[in-house]
Amino acid sequence: MTEILYEALDGVATVTLNRPDRLNAWTGAMASGLREAMARAEADPAVKAIILTGAGRGFCAGADMGMLQDISASGESESRAFAPFDPTARPDYQHPQTWLAAVSKPIVAAINGPAAGMGLCLSLFCDLRFAADSAIFVSAFSRRGLIAEHGTSWMLTRLVGHSRAMDIMLSSRRVSAAEAYRMGLADRVVAAHDLMAEARAYARDLAENVSPRSMAVIKRQLWNGLLQGLAEAMTDADREMALSLKSDDFKEGVAHFVEKRPARFPAKV
Amino acid sequence: MTEILYEALDGVATVTLNRPDRLNAWTGAMASGLREAMARAEADPAVKAIILTGAGRGFCAGADMGMLQDISASGESESRAFAPFDPTARPDYQHPQTWLAAVSKPIVAAINGPAAGMGLCLSLFCDLRFAADSAIFVSAFSRRGLIAEHGTSWMLTRLVGHSRAMDIMLSSRRVSAAEAYRMGLADRVVAAHDLMAEARAYARDLAENVSPRSMAVIKRQLWNGLLQGLAEAMTDADREMALSLKSDDFKEGVAHFVEKRPARFPAKV
Amino acid sequence: MTEILYEALDGVATVTLNRPDRLNAWTGAMASGLREAMARAEADPAVKAIILTGAGRGFCAGADMGMLQDISASGESESRAFAPFDPTARPDYQHPQTWLAAVSKPIVAAINGPAAGMGLCLSLFCDLRFAADSAIFVSAFSRRGLIAEHGTSWMLTRLVGHSRAMDIMLSSRRVSAAEAYRMGLADRVVAAHDLMAEARAYARDLAENVSPRSMAVIKRQLWNGLLQGLAEAMTDADREMALSLKSDDFKEGVAHFVEKRPARFPAKV
Repeated sequence: MTEILYEALDGVATVTLNRPDRLNAWTGAMASGLREAMARAEADPAVKAIILTGAGRGFCAGADMGMLQDISASGESESRAFAPFDPTARPDYQHPQTWLAAVSKPIVAAINGPAAGMGLCLSLFCDLRFAADSAIFVSAFSRRGLIAEHGTSWMLTRLVGHSRAMDIMLSSRRVSAAEAYRMGLADRVVAAHDLMAEARAYARDLAENVSPRSMAVIKRQLWNGLLQGLAEAMTDADREMALSLKSDDFKEGVAHFVEKRPARFPAKV
Repeated sequence: MTEILYEALDGVATVTLNRPDRLNAWTGAMASGLREAMARAEADPAVKAIILTGAGRGFCAGADMGMLQDISASGESESRAFAPFDPTARPDYQHPQTWLAAVSKPIVAAINGPAAGMGLCLSLFCDLRFAADSAIFVSAFSRRGLIAEHGTSWMLTRLVGHSRAMDIMLSSRRVSAAEAYRMGLADRVVAAHDLMAEARAYARDLAENVSPRSMAVIKRQLWNGLLQGLAEAMTDADREMALSLKSDDFKEGVAHFVEKRPARFPAKV
Repeated sequence: MTEILYEALDGVATVTLNRPDRLNAWTGAMASGLREAMARAEADPAVKAIILTGAGRGFCAGADMGMLQDISASGESESRAFAPFDPTARPDYQHPQTWLAAVSKPIVAAINGPAAGMGLCLSLFCDLRFAADSAIFVSAFSRRGLIAEHGTSWMLTRLVGHSRAMDIMLSSRRVSAAEAYRMGLADRVVAAHDLMAEARAYARDLAENVSPRSMAVIKRQLWNGLLQGLAEAMTDADREMALSLKSDDFKEGVAHFVEKRPARFPAKV
């Protein structure tokens, strides 16, 4: 039993942060394990969508307090060379905390409990956030004497707007799941005992009814679009549209619609 | 009777997509007709604001399925040279699907029914969206094996934030008018039978009480501002402010306020 | 008694626009006084957070009508050289109406009544907006024959999204506090008689429990992040993180948490 669990079923990989006795507080071993799990999901053609969640009562409570105390004593953070997940991704998505955006398959975070500090950061670079009604989001940095680490402030602003991000990051107040939903930080809020079923139903719908090729292109368009002007985004879209029109996925996308039957899209190459 | 209807009354032009038996599915003829209608509204000094809507039960159900099947068979989309609507606009707003942002008069989309695929795209590049409570917004691209065409993903993100745009574009799920309103995609939701009255009342208020000169500058500021840093936007604003202070519109804007009477702004030159 | 009042208490400076008989309509003297008050708050190590509010029934009703009439008669706005509040800030935040973003301490606008025109602009460049339920936000520019002055359109878009900003700026309609809250323009809405207590409680919590050093860095990260790509924001964050890990604030941030006692962060240097 490791600090990261992996399971794949019905086209959906579920990756679980697994230090439940510490609310899944973040460690170096979890960072490596998460990377391996995502690489495995990426490499498996049967996997079309990914769920990221936490074991037990928490999603991820932030950096492990022992690790923080060591850093506080030494004044140094462990710095490691970081190999990009996808070397063809924009440099913005080749950092130790932003590379989830470079995974080509959609990642739904199923936020089952507190997402704090590094845990908040982790949740922000997933593609979507489904939250249990008991989940909370909290930055924590400003009450630890720290700063908005790893792109947290930049990304949060793109989800909820400048003012709400300022409130959350300055005060480190707790944001409930209901408030997160209202703001655009959570995409769904459901009763805690329904969370995994809701996330799985969404991921399975993607796996069964949506073109894997389309999802990979569209995910990249949305992440890259945050960094592009419209003209540049349009150039990419026109190139990708021309390619898609020649694809088997488009043929099947029209055919299943006209024939009124479920789609049978090819697995992504 | 053509595929685009045009009417001008009381300072407001109404442009109607008119293939009601096909939920106004998009054709090349509609693209040309829409361009002509907008050019007519632009050229008429009596027109101060524009409404874009659909005949019958739909707003625009997307590309015509016959057209899609032809493209699917050939793997080629018809490519035509596209002359900018306003050659002085930023290149971003000189594309076949983004040029509505370059029309100098405000365009209110009155979304009377499904806005899907190309219809969603069309609605996004209007300035505002008023929706019937029965309207739905849907991307559709990912279930056709296609990609986020024509800047849809870029523009949607600027309206509703990154996460909601990701959800809508990846899943192609139906977004109700109520949800669109909550997200910032629809600016008003009203009962279907009140939609045109509500859109007309808004457009007429603009036509009667707001400076046409101000609207043209402000519309351009908001669209260009999506592509600018603040310093650049401020340079534009300072230049435009100096010009506005010398304008007849400003004189009338102060005078009617001081004299407590309705404004009589000059038509835009 | 001047046009700007200043008071500092319990770590919180309160700055009050003070022309209550004119709904605090904006004058050159107020501009100078506001600058002096903010410089005083910045220089006082005992001040950790700032509240900006209006005396009487209004927040700020916009440019003084007498001033506007003079400008309308002459067609010229008074142009003065403007010395940056913080010369090391990005140029974007060195303008006569954007420099509040360059104050290193958080500024909560307590919007007690109408925020119109210049008053809206002023509120947008504060870090947060708490609104009385009777407050209204209104652009007014388009009905005066003017344009979106001083970055108003750019900033409003970053708070509420493109479409809502377009609606507000084109129509100059009144936006209620409740609607402003729903949109992300107001961060809190409370009964008018509770407004100052609510703003003070928030500011005092920041002053007592949050690191002043963290707030200064995080405020700058959020404002600069509006102008940066993620890679650039990440470079800043990594540099600031390394500095924070060596700071006394971080030591205290971990120590008070582990020892389960209130924090005693050092004043910002």
